[in-house]
Amino acid sequence: MRTGLGAFALAENNDSSSTLQTISRQELRQLIRLQLEALLEQQNLAGAKTLLIPVHPPDVAEAIEGLPEAMQAIAFRLLPKDKAIEVYEHLDSSIQQVLVEEFKRQEVLDIVDKMSPDDRARLFDELPAKVVSRLLGQLSPVERRSTALLLGYEANTAGRIMTPEYISLKENWTVAQTLERIRNLAHVSETVYYLYITDVARHLSGILSLRDLVTAQPEQTIGEIMTRDVLFVHTDADQEEVAQTIQRYDFLAVPVVDREQRLVGIVTVDDVIDILEAEATEDIQKLAGGGGDEAALSAPSVTLRKRLPWLLGNIGLYVIAASAIVPFQGTIQLFPVLAVIMPTLSNTSGNVGIQALAVTVRGLGVGEVTLGDTTRILRKEILAGLLTAVVLGVSLGLLSLIWSTDQDRWVGLVAGLVMSINVLTAATLGTLLPMGLKRINLDPALISGPLLTTILDAFGFFTFLGLITISLKAFS
Amino acid sequence: MRTGLGAFALAENNDSSSTLQTISRQELRQLIRLQLEALLEQQNLAGAKTLLIPVHPPDVAEAIEGLPEAMQAIAFRLLPKDKAIEVYEHLDSSIQQVLVEEFKRQEVLDIVDKMSPDDRARLFDELPAKVVSRLLGQLSPVERRSTALLLGYEANTAGRIMTPEYISLKENWTVAQTLERIRNLAHVSETVYYLYITDVARHLSGILSLRDLVTAQPEQTIGEIMTRDVLFVHTDADQEEVAQTIQRYDFLAVPVVDREQRLVGIVTVDDVIDILEAEATEDIQKLAGGGGDEAALSAPSVTLRKRLPWLLGNIGLYVIAASAIVPFQGTIQLFPVLAVIMPTLSNTSGNVGIQALAVTVRGLGVGEVTLGDTTRILRKEILAGLLTAVVLGVSLGLLSLIWSTDQDRWVGLVAGLVMSINVLTAATLGTLLPMGLKRINLDPALISGPLLTTILDAFGFFTFLGLITISLKAFS
Repeated sequence: MRTGLGAFALAENNDSSSTLQTISRQELRQLIRLQLEALLEQQNLAGAKTLLIPVHPPDVAEAIEGLPEAMQAIAFRLLPKDKAIEVYEHLDSSIQQVLVEEFKRQEVLDIVDKMSPDDRARLFDELPAKVVSRLLGQLSPVERRSTALLLGYEANTAGRIMTPEYISLKENWTVAQTLERIRNLAHVSETVYYLYITDVARHLSGILSLRDLVTAQPEQTIGEIMTRDVLFVHTDADQEEVAQTIQRYDFLAVPVVDREQRLVGIVTVDDVIDILEAEATEDIQKLAGGGGDEAALSAPSVTLRKRLPWLLGNIGLYVIAASAIVPFQGTIQLFPVLAVIMPTLSNTSGNVGIQALAVTVRGLGVGEVTLGDTTRILRKEILAGLLTAVVLGVSLGLLSLIWSTDQDRWVGLVAGLVMSINVLTAATLGTLLPMGLKRINLDPALISGPLLTTILDAFGFFTFLGLITISLKAFS
Repeated sequence: MRTGLGAFALAENNDSSSTLQTISRQELRQLIRLQLEALLEQQNLAGAKTLLIPVHPPDVAEAIEGLPEAMQAIAFRLLPKDKAIEVYEHLDSSIQQVLVEEFKRQEVLDIVDKMSPDDRARLFDELPAKVVSRLLGQLSPVERRSTALLLGYEANTAGRIMTPEYISLKENWTVAQTLERIRNLAHVSETVYYLYITDVARHLSGILSLRDLVTAQPEQTIGEIMTRDVLFVHTDADQEEVAQTIQRYDFLAVPVVDREQRLVGIVTVDDVIDILEAEATEDIQKLAGGGGDEAALSAPSVTLRKRLPWLLGNIGLYVIAASAIVPFQGTIQLFPVLAVIMPTLSNTSGNVGIQALAVTVRGLGVGEVTLGDTTRILRKEILAGLLTAVVLGVSLGLLSLIWSTDQDRWVGLVAGLVMSINVLTAATLGTLLPMGLKRINLDPALISGPLLTTILDAFGFFTFLGLITISLKAFS
């Protein structure tokens, strides 16, 4: 997407600004969606077209997404071509795909040709290969080259999210010459706020901000005012790493170089925000035991497809945990209070494990925790887990005393002991498992909450019922 | 924090850049932390000072954070004053506080006086009131006014996170005049990439990007080239809303106005990234049943203080769920297989509930879901939940058949039925509860995973054991 003020320029009706400013954008979007739906139902296409003129592209996209599927393509066709491109870039990729497949060839050509290369690469990545090759064939040679360049890199790397639309300079240019160049190139560059200096072999040799440029004297050369120590990322850097670099240093963009240190593109801050948000959503959904890529407003069938496999997988695994109980049914018959204590044991140690897991997975996700911190974070969790274990063990012990009758009071002691052991195990595993996955270069979020609680339950139930049964035999 | 290239300028030694580029920043930080610790242990202060000269401020901050507490202040004092301020702004607020309390008065004055106002307000917010008033007394009058201005707004609002350091213009200025003004003001403004046009009464009347300014003709007036339809936020807007505005429109900054529509500050994209990240972390930790503000590498005592109250609260609540089992101990004695089925029922419906909860809370958090979507999202969850309920009900029914003996096979039927009911309840509550909290203006993440599973267990255990007991009486 384009950084900058493009979105401002579209409200052609100045009177609308006061309306825009006194209601919330959320209300505005709902209003537009309802108006649009009503006008389209009445087949009043001219009215719908006029309605959309003063609305900002992201709001139009939102309104279109809320429409019934059959109306989406119609609403989109009503937009003037320039605006259609901006709206298109703001649409959900699932709706982008539907639209692309519906449009006539010429319409597709116009839209895709004018998209910025990084948005185009992201769209192509999600399209069937046949559609992609058809689209590529329709692009101008220059456009095709930049798309193909982007497509050559692995998904989720800097190479894939970068845009080749940056402004590069030479060291010996003057400030005045450079300002002239920016005047000519501003419209084709994703950002003009950072300028990149390359040598004849396209190696990145320096960086200059537009801020520094406008405050310099016209006759100074770029070499005199540029910063030579440039932070950059490689094309194969993980997009999360790129995002963290921009966030950490408060940059507006970061340059991307290939293995030969040649400048090939830049990643801008607006794309980084979207990446950070998607990664956080993925962490949350995976922690809750899901696929990590479910949209909140997807169709029921999509929701089902995203969640049911995980649920079935979890129930399949849980059979193992619950099977730990099966051989001890005789013990439970003797002491039915065990059936009251077991869910409490399971729930509480599950909570401890998931707290540790959430903090560790998120810490790894935002780069707050690195592998070098393994010992430190483990020591912390074990120390804090020890006291937690004692407190929760005593709590369950006391509760069990209340629940049990005179002849099974001693069960409370065992319950307290097992709770302590299981809580400490929970804190340790909740930290150790994601750190271990990270060490072998897997996604730490692969250990979901449900998976961890299943492991803890299998261990907890077996230990608890086993200890009770052994004690019974020892004392009878 | 400052946007821009400030961080580039600090590596004074050009040879270091090749080293910086071939190892990962993570390795670099660990290396520096170890070197620094070794030099400080040897009391080699001159060596430590030299070591830090070519290191970027965020990396220095990271290295200092990793040091034992006693060394942190010493390491910080080694930095030259200009760099100390940048490093200070990158430190964790907890360490900032420790340092402030340790420094001599003059040192505090120098650092705080030069911090940017938004960082300063954030620091003051976390300091004891006595320290704050002492610090405010040491600021220059101009600095004090901007800090006090920021402190007048509620925490987590636009007013609190904005910076008053922006560049404002008048409509009748020419492009040439404006460029001259930017040359003079660039060093005191947080960003020069967006310029704000105000009238005599300080009302915001337009916006101009530096991009548009440098591509305009020198003799044009600002009024001719500015965009009049400006998107802005009010001082009391929630910081999450501000972040979403910037993200949605791909802005680098957004202007903040007071009730009289006068421009009072701007919020920049670098602060927004930090806000979005903190909000996501909060959502994750709250979902896992924690306070939402725990750092992954905090001290064990901090971890304990953040988590133990929630765990004790949860176990306290869970007593209610487990108590639903107490009156049915006789039934369990008759059919001990119930003790195998119950944890499976609890675990699976808990998973369903938490999946729905995670998707809804996150959807609300990123603005993907609004209150207007309540019916739509509920319908989706109930439809998807219905089929999930059937599939999981049948699964548990079959499992129960395997687990049970000849005389208690019918228990499996009841288990399957209750599983279906509880799974549908889970999907509904996991969506409805956060939407309901949002409607009454509370944080949707107040419904944590543990709280939801406790509610579901209380309901599930009672229904299951109740139905079994009733069936027993009916058929015997």
